[in-house]
Amino acid sequence: MQSLTIDEARGWYQDADPVHDFDHVLRVYRVAERLAEAEGADLTIVRAAALLHDSCGSAPGGEGTARAEHHVASANFAGEILAQKDWPQEKIRAVQHCIRAHRFRGKEDAPKTLEAKVLFDADKLDVLGAIGAARTIAYAALDGQPAYAEPSAQFLATGQKEPGERHSSYHEFLFKLRKIKDRMFTPSGKALAEGRHQVLVAFYEQLQAEVRGER
Amino acid sequence: MQSLTIDEARGWYQDADPVHDFDHVLRVYRVAERLAEAEGADLTIVRAAALLHDSCGSAPGGEGTARAEHHVASANFAGEILAQKDWPQEKIRAVQHCIRAHRFRGKEDAPKTLEAKVLFDADKLDVLGAIGAARTIAYAALDGQPAYAEPSAQFLATGQKEPGERHSSYHEFLFKLRKIKDRMFTPSGKALAEGRHQVLVAFYEQLQAEVRGER
Repeated sequence: MQSLTIDEARGWYQDADPVHDFDHVLRVYRVAERLAEAEGADLTIVRAAALLHDSCGSAPGGEGTARAEHHVASANFAGEILAQKDWPQEKIRAVQHCIRAHRFRGKEDAPKTLEAKVLFDADKLDVLGAIGAARTIAYAALDGQPAYAEPSAQFLATGQKEPGERHSSYHEFLFKLRKIKDRMFTPSGKALAEGRHQVLVAFYEQLQAEVRGER
Repeated sequence: MQSLTIDEARGWYQDADPVHDFDHVLRVYRVAERLAEAEGADLTIVRAAALLHDSCGSAPGGEGTARAEHHVASANFAGEILAQKDWPQEKIRAVQHCIRAHRFRGKEDAPKTLEAKVLFDADKLDVLGAIGAARTIAYAALDGQPAYAEPSAQFLATGQKEPGERHSSYHEFLFKLRKIKDRMFTPSGKALAEGRHQVLVAFYEQLQAEVRGER
């Protein structure tokens, strides 16, 4: 059973989109290690799952079919890679479960093992905090959207934009990012998420005040 | 002498790049109004100068010739627009001075009037704070650069990257943004810049700590 290296993993992400690139994988890897140590999870499983979790299907376009199924494709790819490295079937299945469960939104596989919960939390933490703001702003820019556009009263109430209303990274924050902290599974993930959530809220409050010329 | 309207100004920025777009103009306009009121500057001059300050040459590509000369082209365009609106020559020249001086870096026209100092400060304030972080990250993303890449010891010491070193929005912060607050002219501009500088410094400290898995 040979271990994976970070340099080897880098090669799987050559064509990744800018929001699910190898920088993202490395951040998830570091945070997952930290959570695994705090929670007593199996580091071998967590490390392999973190390095492989976005290895397939991170095609530009974000929400298309390729992206939607990337957790399944990445789990299959992980199976091939780890089999080549003589990992026992049981450990391969444990890694594959982490990868399939990392994008759980109520329908896909829910994280059942401690290792899967750690990977899920580490992946979600990467859309919170300063890095969450940076990724959301970068994604908006690549899609021709501003960091901030004033949301309509309708959007604030329902999450549905008015006709002609511009989308912005602030809309993403309101509709998605500010709810993420409530989805954490592990105690150490929750604690880290709380801190990063506050950073994100303060950032967007400041951004709004600056746009309005108030600060 | 007819006044300019915001809707009219919007039309001049249809093809602007995402970092010098009409959102930027509106933010500069609001902040310039605030500074002008605090400093006792002529609001008519400041408002016209803010609406016209990036009206030409904000072509994508940032640092090219078009962008380098955009202050001169915009001042010329302002002269035409304001002459059509029967502004007296003296006021036109006052607006043109603000526009030509707004990108003063030691060689071009330095801001001599209070109105020019107000516009200069308002424009520079837009690269500080949360909006400064957002614009720098968006610009980096559009140029294929990450929000954060670890700077080399050489870059930290000299501002020159090592061969192969990736550029990032953090490099922009280190090399440019963190020095901006010392370039303000007006007392109210300095005060606002101090607050936004702290926001920007805290943002990048947080970003670095998150990337390293420390927070």
